[in-house]
Amino acid sequence: MKNFLDLADFPRDEIVELLALAERLRERPEPNALKGRVLGLLFFNPSLRTLASMQVAMARLGGESFVITPGSGSWQLETRLGVTMTGSAAEHIREAIPVLDSYCDVLGVRAFAEGCDLAADLAERNFTNIASLCRHPLINLESAVNHPCQALADWKTLDDLKVPRRGRFVLSWANHPRALPLAVPAATVHMAALRGMDVVVLRPPGFELPDSIMDKARRAAAGSGGSVSETDDRAAALAGAQVVYAKEWGSTEHYGNAEAEARARSGLGDWMVQESWFQKASPDCHLMHCLPVRRNVAIADEVLDGPRSRVLAQAHNRLVVQMAVLYRLLGAAPAGRLH
Amino acid sequence: MKNFLDLADFPRDEIVELLALAERLRERPEPNALKGRVLGLLFFNPSLRTLASMQVAMARLGGESFVITPGSGSWQLETRLGVTMTGSAAEHIREAIPVLDSYCDVLGVRAFAEGCDLAADLAERNFTNIASLCRHPLINLESAVNHPCQALADWKTLDDLKVPRRGRFVLSWANHPRALPLAVPAATVHMAALRGMDVVVLRPPGFELPDSIMDKARRAAAGSGGSVSETDDRAAALAGAQVVYAKEWGSTEHYGNAEAEARARSGLGDWMVQESWFQKASPDCHLMHCLPVRRNVAIADEVLDGPRSRVLAQAHNRLVVQMAVLYRLLGAAPAGRLH
Amino acid sequence: MKNFLDLADFPRDEIVELLALAERLRERPEPNALKGRVLGLLFFNPSLRTLASMQVAMARLGGESFVITPGSGSWQLETRLGVTMTGSAAEHIREAIPVLDSYCDVLGVRAFAEGCDLAADLAERNFTNIASLCRHPLINLESAVNHPCQALADWKTLDDLKVPRRGRFVLSWANHPRALPLAVPAATVHMAALRGMDVVVLRPPGFELPDSIMDKARRAAAGSGGSVSETDDRAAALAGAQVVYAKEWGSTEHYGNAEAEARARSGLGDWMVQESWFQKASPDCHLMHCLPVRRNVAIADEVLDGPRSRVLAQAHNRLVVQMAVLYRLLGAAPAGRLH
Repeated sequence: MKNFLDLADFPRDEIVELLALAERLRERPEPNALKGRVLGLLFFNPSLRTLASMQVAMARLGGESFVITPGSGSWQLETRLGVTMTGSAAEHIREAIPVLDSYCDVLGVRAFAEGCDLAADLAERNFTNIASLCRHPLINLESAVNHPCQALADWKTLDDLKVPRRGRFVLSWANHPRALPLAVPAATVHMAALRGMDVVVLRPPGFELPDSIMDKARRAAAGSGGSVSETDDRAAALAGAQVVYAKEWGSTEHYGNAEAEARARSGLGDWMVQESWFQKASPDCHLMHCLPVRRNVAIADEVLDGPRSRVLAQAHNRLVVQMAVLYRLLGAAPAGRLH
Repeated sequence: MKNFLDLADFPRDEIVELLALAERLRERPEPNALKGRVLGLLFFNPSLRTLASMQVAMARLGGESFVITPGSGSWQLETRLGVTMTGSAAEHIREAIPVLDSYCDVLGVRAFAEGCDLAADLAERNFTNIASLCRHPLINLESAVNHPCQALADWKTLDDLKVPRRGRFVLSWANHPRALPLAVPAATVHMAALRGMDVVVLRPPGFELPDSIMDKARRAAAGSGGSVSETDDRAAALAGAQVVYAKEWGSTEHYGNAEAEARARSGLGDWMVQESWFQKASPDCHLMHCLPVRRNVAIADEVLDGPRSRVLAQAHNRLVVQMAVLYRLLGAAPAGRLH
Repeated sequence: MKNFLDLADFPRDEIVELLALAERLRERPEPNALKGRVLGLLFFNPSLRTLASMQVAMARLGGESFVITPGSGSWQLETRLGVTMTGSAAEHIREAIPVLDSYCDVLGVRAFAEGCDLAADLAERNFTNIASLCRHPLINLESAVNHPCQALADWKTLDDLKVPRRGRFVLSWANHPRALPLAVPAATVHMAALRGMDVVVLRPPGFELPDSIMDKARRAAAGSGGSVSETDDRAAALAGAQVVYAKEWGSTEHYGNAEAEARARSGLGDWMVQESWFQKASPDCHLMHCLPVRRNVAIADEVLDGPRSRVLAQAHNRLVVQMAVLYRLLGAAPAGRLH
């Protein structure tokens, strides 16, 4: 394993093995496995779970980490190529990324979608640039349309809950005050399809997932025996659901257009997950969400505080699976001389 | 010891033992005591001593720590229960606290008083909510009306200085540009009373400490042989003082009312501790303050830079006593499997 | 070695030995050398390389570190002596520095020039105050007119590149949207002179380096067999150059006067290093810069992305030489009881 950028980079078997390694490290910690190794963390965007769990994952394995936050204690970074840098950014990623990479054994980077140009975001233009600048292993801590650490943690949570491989997995759009990125919905639909589930994307008109995201999930489903479909019929989608995964995302029809987006969003207030949504679902239907979640906007208190909610288990599994990712990326080769 | 939230949670003997442990760890460090253990630190408010000394305390015992600062690199957190989260907070403490708790072995949280509703602050409404969400040990790094780490460090400083148990301890109100919380005065008056001292609270009219704070201190004094009184007569208060502990706090008469508070505060500029205050005090009277302190507003340069000042010893003892707290909370049980 | 504040504090031989130690630690890491030791880092100004590389240097040697950023998670700090603190700073360095110093085994501080009063900045008034407050070793992470960690890393880079001791080293002024401090140019001209190089400072009129900086470099050159000169004739300066070290700095003629500075700066847009600058230089002439650099303002993409650029090697050597500095400052004495 050279990098951890996308679950789609790995055969399904390798992911299953990674999940087994995660469980082994949870059961039998190896506090000296990564002694002397250093994880660099670069956050272009806010974080709670990722920021804490990556540091803890490294610490639990005996390693160290450092955090760089451009614009807060560190220089603002320019990401566009070829520009004349007379703006607020004092440094370019073409210097910053190789420099940070040269200090550490593995680098984790969070860089959300820019949210203006759907094609550029779908192509992972920014993250691909970043990855091309790294010599050491790179971990995607959420890019424009991916979040493989979250997807892996969610897969482990489904396994821990013994959700059947062919279970009905509903990814439901949820309400939010403004447009959020496509990273988690894209990673989730792919993960559930690759696990082999019957995946239904439930969303209002104008919020369809882009073809490239759906096609990628369908290819995964084809190999794993699952299926992927999309609908705006909530009752049909939820009937028999074993998992409802709620997630907020922006209108793909009006991508990058805040005004049209706001109009499309008005009147969608009933897309808040409530207990009544689960009437026709499987009796033990689980509620998942990657967090952070706005209570009583995306999901009602009654659901988050009720017995269906698995959001804390998902968040804890971030730590568990990231230990496995770091172990796999670094564990084979012993620490040696600096280059 | 399950949590470290309030000195009043412990019998006096247990605190004396904790101080002895602190001295032992200072004299004979145990750099592997907490190897493999992780301290999470959540700061809703700024910090210098607590932020640095908690990390160092953990490091000196061989452990690791991480820091989360809501609103700076991490999401703003909502603390109110039952609200519809359409504001600036992206996440609720009902998710954030259990998630962080699940990553670490011990969690430290700083959450100052909101400063609007005196009854709610005195009841520690916010911190009590936070504590109810934790499974692992929790350390209070300053709540609405408590600061047990500071109080423990101050007790150790008094012991180090060999201040007599029954010595005269004056907690004096000090000038500040605006209202500050009651946490340190409340913790200080209780600590000194529990140590067995004759405690005098010296403050201008309108700045009386609330009954519940005074009553708690009086109960501690009753058990330890000390006493607690309150006055606005500076000369009487300072006569024979062995310790003057200066602290700024807001008007309790005008709590949460900035305008009335400012009026009450105007004309109190002479409540800056100066060398002349010590004329009738004990000749070797000590000046204490928890820091940060505004020079030449709360305390004059001549006092802070003079031989009475113990503020640096107090700050250093933060590190020393927190090592003991962490050792006691975590030291007994060895590191094991993650839950 | 008690502190690391200025290369000029050490005999040339001691610096050569320090560079040899750096190379040894790079080749043969000592991951337990500083086990149990703590580095405190105080950043009054933004940082990427220093922030990351200091933490990693400590981690690679088995130690720990913490970071304090006044005004971001920590209190704003007052640096002026004798003031009445009614402004935005809640704490004074006279408390903050000794407190942080008392928590750690070695302290690193970054405090840029204030940029108002040239004489005060040249005298290192602020950093001298800070240094006087420390008991433990102190590392200068960039002060008003010094940056010894950068200078040491640059020296190592010149050695790694086998640049001849008596080679021609051109420090060239480079364009920038606004005035930057004199720290790196001052440290660079001194370092290159101390190494024994023929140093030429190339800058437009009004941007002369102050006499005290040039005189210090000339004294170093006198002892090492090098030379130091200054010119605004670019063609003459660059002819035969083996190194071009580009750096932005403010007008010394109009120091602290933003309007006059902006006027002096207008029309200097051709002071961007381009490939055409190297026509008469030595064929393998190296381009150096301390970073961060504004692409296509100070240096053109074609140079930074071309074969001359050594900026990444310089940045990586920050880590390498700082390991040696920490090792020398702390390595001799074993960890012991806290004071």
